[in-house]
Amino acid sequence: MSKPILKIIPLGGLSEIGKNMMMIEHGNDIIVIDAGFMFPEEEMLGIDLVIPDISYLLEKKDKVRGIIITHGHDDHIGALPYILPQLNVPVYATKLTQGLISVKLKERKALDGAKLETITTGKSFSLGKFRIEFFPVCHSIPDAVGLIINTPIGTIVHSGDFKVDYTPVSGKPTDLSRLAQLGAQGVLLLLADSTYAELPGYTPSERVVGETLDHVMANAPGRVVITTFSSLVSRIQQVIDAAAKHKRRVFIVGRSMSNTVQMALKLGYLSDSEEVLARIDELKGMPRNKIVFVTTGSQGEPTSALVRMANRAHRQVHILRGDTVVISATPIPGNESLINRTVDNLFKQGAQVIYSKLEQVHVHGHASQEELKLILNLVKPKFFMPIHGEYRHLSIHSQLAQSIGMPKDNIFVLEDGDILELSQQAGKKTGRVTSGNVYVDGLSVGDIGSIVLRNRRMLSRDGIVVAIIAINKQTGKLVGRPDIVSRGFVDTRESKDMLEESRDLVAQTLDHSGKQPTEWSLVNDKIRDILNRFYYERTKRRPMILPFMVKV
Amino acid sequence: MSKPILKIIPLGGLSEIGKNMMMIEHGNDIIVIDAGFMFPEEEMLGIDLVIPDISYLLEKKDKVRGIIITHGHDDHIGALPYILPQLNVPVYATKLTQGLISVKLKERKALDGAKLETITTGKSFSLGKFRIEFFPVCHSIPDAVGLIINTPIGTIVHSGDFKVDYTPVSGKPTDLSRLAQLGAQGVLLLLADSTYAELPGYTPSERVVGETLDHVMANAPGRVVITTFSSLVSRIQQVIDAAAKHKRRVFIVGRSMSNTVQMALKLGYLSDSEEVLARIDELKGMPRNKIVFVTTGSQGEPTSALVRMANRAHRQVHILRGDTVVISATPIPGNESLINRTVDNLFKQGAQVIYSKLEQVHVHGHASQEELKLILNLVKPKFFMPIHGEYRHLSIHSQLAQSIGMPKDNIFVLEDGDILELSQQAGKKTGRVTSGNVYVDGLSVGDIGSIVLRNRRMLSRDGIVVAIIAINKQTGKLVGRPDIVSRGFVDTRESKDMLEESRDLVAQTLDHSGKQPTEWSLVNDKIRDILNRFYYERTKRRPMILPFMVKV
Repeated sequence: MSKPILKIIPLGGLSEIGKNMMMIEHGNDIIVIDAGFMFPEEEMLGIDLVIPDISYLLEKKDKVRGIIITHGHDDHIGALPYILPQLNVPVYATKLTQGLISVKLKERKALDGAKLETITTGKSFSLGKFRIEFFPVCHSIPDAVGLIINTPIGTIVHSGDFKVDYTPVSGKPTDLSRLAQLGAQGVLLLLADSTYAELPGYTPSERVVGETLDHVMANAPGRVVITTFSSLVSRIQQVIDAAAKHKRRVFIVGRSMSNTVQMALKLGYLSDSEEVLARIDELKGMPRNKIVFVTTGSQGEPTSALVRMANRAHRQVHILRGDTVVISATPIPGNESLINRTVDNLFKQGAQVIYSKLEQVHVHGHASQEELKLILNLVKPKFFMPIHGEYRHLSIHSQLAQSIGMPKDNIFVLEDGDILELSQQAGKKTGRVTSGNVYVDGLSVGDIGSIVLRNRRMLSRDGIVVAIIAINKQTGKLVGRPDIVSRGFVDTRESKDMLEESRDLVAQTLDHSGKQPTEWSLVNDKIRDILNRFYYERTKRRPMILPFMVKV
Repeated sequence: MSKPILKIIPLGGLSEIGKNMMMIEHGNDIIVIDAGFMFPEEEMLGIDLVIPDISYLLEKKDKVRGIIITHGHDDHIGALPYILPQLNVPVYATKLTQGLISVKLKERKALDGAKLETITTGKSFSLGKFRIEFFPVCHSIPDAVGLIINTPIGTIVHSGDFKVDYTPVSGKPTDLSRLAQLGAQGVLLLLADSTYAELPGYTPSERVVGETLDHVMANAPGRVVITTFSSLVSRIQQVIDAAAKHKRRVFIVGRSMSNTVQMALKLGYLSDSEEVLARIDELKGMPRNKIVFVTTGSQGEPTSALVRMANRAHRQVHILRGDTVVISATPIPGNESLINRTVDNLFKQGAQVIYSKLEQVHVHGHASQEELKLILNLVKPKFFMPIHGEYRHLSIHSQLAQSIGMPKDNIFVLEDGDILELSQQAGKKTGRVTSGNVYVDGLSVGDIGSIVLRNRRMLSRDGIVVAIIAINKQTGKLVGRPDIVSRGFVDTRESKDMLEESRDLVAQTLDHSGKQPTEWSLVNDKIRDILNRFYYERTKRRPMILPFMVKV
C-alpha cells in the first residue's frame, strides 16, 4: 500500500531561462512535468547546452509514467532529445507543442520510437494514480497549457508559464473560470510561474504591440524589418495583419523563421487570408514602402539573419538608409551586449531602430504581481509552491502570497533537488535528491566535469605554455635544449627574449636536479613552479604551465 | 599662422561604460578632455582593462598642452596612470577629482612627477590658445564639471557627464543660468552627454532615494545593509542622514568604501555632524535594529564585501535572517548575472533584499531626453556633437536635437578616431586617426594582439591537445610512441581509449610520411588535420591541436 503522501521535487527551473523540470511522486507512480534545456552561463566555457540531472528518475525508472509538457519553448522541451531515450516514456502535450517536440527530436535523431500523445484542453487522461487535465493559458507561444492534476490526496494546479491577457491575439485567454471552479471545490497545492514576480501591476495585453506595429507600418518611409522570436506566432500574425492593412507584402527571411511560419500556417495557428506573405523572388522592383521583412535575430545571435544584415553580410538583404528596424523582443538575460552591438550597427547603416527601450514593441509572456495575486485568489490553494524563476523570484512570489493572507508555513520555496513531502495536512522539506547541471558539449552529454571547465577557464585567461624536455632514459640527462611553446599567453615575437630566457631556466633547473627516474614528477612540479614565478614576475600573468618529459 | 579651423576627435567613448577621451586641436595647440578606461568585454579574454589608443597624441606630443578631467569616475580618469607617463602634461581638475586621480596614479606608481592642477569652478585658465572655464554640473559624484572652452573661432560647451537635478543632495545643481548666458552670447559647438538619451522624460532627483532610505531605516525589523558605488558620496550622505534620524549607527565595511569615506570626510564632501559613523568594534552588543552597514558590491564583484557576506565568506559580517539589504545602484551592462546571483544568495540567507526593480533605491547620474532638450535650448549652439555613449545613444541624441529644430547638417555623430573639422561656417568629417582599444593585461600595455586573443578564445571553447613526437634527427624516424597531452578538451580518464587511439593515428601518419627534414612543417599540418578530423568525428569538438616534433 502506498503512503498517502506526495513527493514534489523540482529538478530544474532555478534559472532565468531555463531547464524547467519537476516531478511528482506518489507510491509507485511518478509523473514528470516539462524537460527544458538552458543555454550555458558565461563561465561554462565551450558548453553547448545545459540539461537537468535526472539521476533520481533513472533510479526509479520503472515508476515514471510519462512526461507532460506545458508548452513548446526550449526551456520546457529542449532536454527531451537527451532524456527521452533514457526514460523511454510517453510525452503528453498539445498539438503545436508536439509539432515543435517532433522537430527537436528529429534534429537529434531521437524521434524514432518516441511515443508522443496529443492532448486537447478540457479532456483528462490518467497516468498511474494521477488524473491530468490541461487548461488553456495565455503565454508567448500558442497552445500553452496549465495542468490540473488529481492525486489520491487532493488536486494540484500547475500554472505552466502564463499571463492573464483578456484580449490575446491568437489562442484562448487563461481559463479563469475553470480556475475559480477548482478553487471552489478545493485545491491542495498551487504551483505557479514566478518569472516576473518582481514586476508590479499587470502585464499589458499583446494588443498594445499591434498598435505600435500598425503605427510603424503606416509611417515608415521605407522598408520595415521586424525581428522577433520564431515561436512568437501571435506577433507574426500581428505583423501580417498590420501589413495587410497598409498594403505591404511580408517576406520571411531565414530558415528557422520560415520553418515555423510554414508549420504554423499548416496547423492553423497562423492565417494569411489576404495573402500578404510573399516569396523573396517577388522582391525585385517592389516599392520600398511596400516591403516588410520578418526575421530572427532579436537576441543578437551572430548567425541570425538580422545580425548578418546589420553587418552587411547577408546574402539577400542589406540594410538601406531609410529602413526601419523593429526589435520586437526583450533581451534574454546575458544577451544584452550582443543586442546592443546589433542596434549600433543598424544605426550605423542608416536605419531607424525601434526597440523596447524606445517604444512598446514587445510585451512579455509572464504574469506580473497583480495577476499572480489574482490566480492565488481564484485558486485558493491550501498550499503554495512558487515555481519557474530564480530564487529571488520565488522568494518575492512567496511574499506576495503572504501579503494576501496565506500563512508562511503553507508556502514552500524549494531549490532544485529539494524534496517536498506533502500530506493533506502539512508539507515539509525532507531531504534532497541528486540534481544540477548536466553539460552537453558536442556529442557528449555529461562527460564535461569541473576539471575540464576549470582548465578551459584557466586557458581562457592567460593561455598555456608547454615546456618540452627531452631526457636520455639511460643517463637521465637532458638531450638538447628544452623547448617552449606558448599559445594565448604573449605575443611570441615581441616576447621572444623572455621565452628564450625561460628555456635556459628550465635547462638550469634540470642541471641542478637529481637524476633518478623516481623523481621525475617532482622535477615536473619544480619546473612548473619556477616558470610560474618567472612569467608572473615578468608579465603579472599566470598561464597554464605544462612541462612534458620525452624520454629517448 | 594657424588655420582658423578646429579639429575635434573622439578617441574613446563609444561604449556603455567607458574610456571616455577626446581632443581638440587648433594650430599648434591640442587639449585632451578626460582619459578613462573601460572593463573588458566578454570576448576580451584575460584582459584586465582597456584604454584608448593615443598614437595620434604621441605623434603630436609637442602640441599637447594638458589633460582636462571632468569628474573622478574611472571611465574618465582610469587611463591616466598609463598615458600620463607617455604624454607628461599637466592635469586640470577639481579638488575631489584630483584626490581620486592621485589615488589612481599612486596605485600604479605614476604619481611621481605628475603635474596636477586643481581648478575651481567659475575661474578660467589658458592652455595655448584655448581658454577654459569649469562650470558645476550635477552627476553621481561630487565636484563634477562641464567645460566652457573659448577657442579662436568660437565657444565650445562640453557638458561632462551630467543631469539636471534642482535638489541635489550634495554639491551644486547644474549651472543653467551660466549656460543660458553663454547661449545668449553665442555658442559655436555643444558637446553633450548621451548616455541616457534613450530614456524619455526627466531623471528623478536624488531626493527620492532619500525617501526610500528613510522608509527602510524606519521599518526594517533588523540590521540594514546598504551597498552602492563608493564614489556615490551623496548616497552615503543620505544613508548617514537617514541613520541619524532613526537613531541607527553606521558601519563602513570594506577597504575601498572606508578609504572614500575617509577622504570625503576630510575634504568636506561628507558630513557626520551627529556622529553616527561607528567603528566595527562598537558593533558588539548593539541591538540589531540600530545597525546599518555600508559596503561596496553593488555590481556583484566577487571579491566585494557584500558578495562575501552573501556567500557566508566575510570575516566580520554574516547575513542574518531578518536583515534588510538595499542595493542602491543599477547594474552596469554586463554585470547583471553576477548581481542576480548575489541577490539570490542573499534571499537564501534569509535577508529581505530591496533592489531597483522593486523600489526606487537608485537614480542614475545622466540626463534623460527632456533634460537633453533643455540644455540644447539654453545653449542654442550653432553646431552639435553628441558624446558619451554607444552609437545608438549618439544617433538618438541627434534625433532629439533635430526634433527641436536643429538642422541635421549641423549635427555630427562621430565614431572614435573620426576627425571633425570645424570652421565658423561649417563642419565636416575629413578623415580618421588611429584609434581603438589598447589592452592592459598584467604588466603589459598593448602587447596583446588579435592572435593572442583568438588563441585564448579557441582554448576557452574546446581546450588544447599537444601531440609530442620524438624523431631521430639522423634517420628521420619516429623514436618511441607519440605522446598526447590534453587540457580542457575531454575528461582524460573517461576518454582514455580515444586519446590512446589518436596516439596510434599519429604514429601511422608518420609511417606514411616522407623523411626529409624539409617536409616537417607539412607533416605538422597533416597531423593537425588528421587529429582535428578524428576528434571532431568522435566528439564534435575542435580543440586547438599543437603537434610538436622533438628531434633527438
